[in-house]
Amino acid sequence: MPKRVDHEHRRQQIAAAVRRIAADRGLEGVSLNEVAAEAGISKGFVQHYFASRDDMLRFATTTLRSGLEERIATPSEPHVRELLIALLPLDEAARDDALVANAFLMRALKDPEIAGHFRTGHGRLRDAVTAMLAAARDDGEFVATLDPVSEAALLLALVSGLGDAVLLGYQTGEEAIALIDLHLSRITA
Amino acid sequence: MPKRVDHEHRRQQIAAAVRRIAADRGLEGVSLNEVAAEAGISKGFVQHYFASRDDMLRFATTTLRSGLEERIATPSEPHVRELLIALLPLDEAARDDALVANAFLMRALKDPEIAGHFRTGHGRLRDAVTAMLAAARDDGEFVATLDPVSEAALLLALVSGLGDAVLLGYQTGEEAIALIDLHLSRITA
Repeated sequence: MPKRVDHEHRRQQIAAAVRRIAADRGLEGVSLNEVAAEAGISKGFVQHYFASRDDMLRFATTTLRSGLEERIATPSEPHVRELLIALLPLDEAARDDALVANAFLMRALKDPEIAGHFRTGHGRLRDAVTAMLAAARDDGEFVATLDPVSEAALLLALVSGLGDAVLLGYQTGEEAIALIDLHLSRITA
Repeated sequence: MPKRVDHEHRRQQIAAAVRRIAADRGLEGVSLNEVAAEAGISKGFVQHYFASRDDMLRFATTTLRSGLEERIATPSEPHVRELLIALLPLDEAARDDALVANAFLMRALKDPEIAGHFRTGHGRLRDAVTAMLAAARDDGEFVATLDPVSEAALLLALVSGLGDAVLLGYQTGEEAIALIDLHLSRITA
């Protein structure tokens, strides 16, 4: 079914253009004209694949943070600390992920479908961190009284806040990593 | 100088309209037409007070988080925990502050003047938390080895991340407060 593949491929290409513009200048910059120019196709073509700008924005959030999953899908079992550091905007891919998430945040508060994509992505991440913490605790790495669910929520909130602090220049990447280590030292056995 | 007062008052009125729209639908929604309608004045009047949309956006960020300062400026000395909870988007004023900060975040990354306003506001907050932590530590409330500068940065990152988690529905306000308490329990003497 080459037609179907083409269709999906085109939509992904347009979504990637939306995300690049959003990461660069926020959703303010995402107009039909700009997206068409960024994707290197005509305005009419964009309209052929998406019925509306909202439809296009929604589709662009279906693959939020998929870059992260690729980055942490290493053959060996990843460590909690590595995963947390991979979430900080320290390289281009992680920075783009963080920028796109920030660009879409206000929209997620208004659009239930986009909010759903945010929640799905966050839920997967929280479950992964919870499982890692539980396993590491059972291996004796973390204090035995540690509640993996609460600690995962705490760590993800901390990393999210540190990510914004790095983006805004409140903290350097090294300082953010030092703060993660300070926090982890308190739950380490 | 009534003229001068009027001028400043008008600019503040327009900035307040910008912030209300930004909190409601992000900077995407901030057009000359929308701002004029929200402020209840003509488009030409807005243009009389601001040379450009960028100029208007910059001015709107000069008073970021000033609501917070009013809320925490209690006669008695505020406690660290109270201040942290006041930063969470749990009531309308704190929610508006958080939404406006989020709406302007992408813009702050591109506009050095807006970035400066963000850094000034964050610096004031960090200094206040650092001073509170140092005083409470010296009073024996916190562990003696606590470094107020690092702990303030850690706490503010945590609260910023928890704030977004509450806005996005990842966590309830009560859960966010419980996580702050879990964190504080580890640095309490």
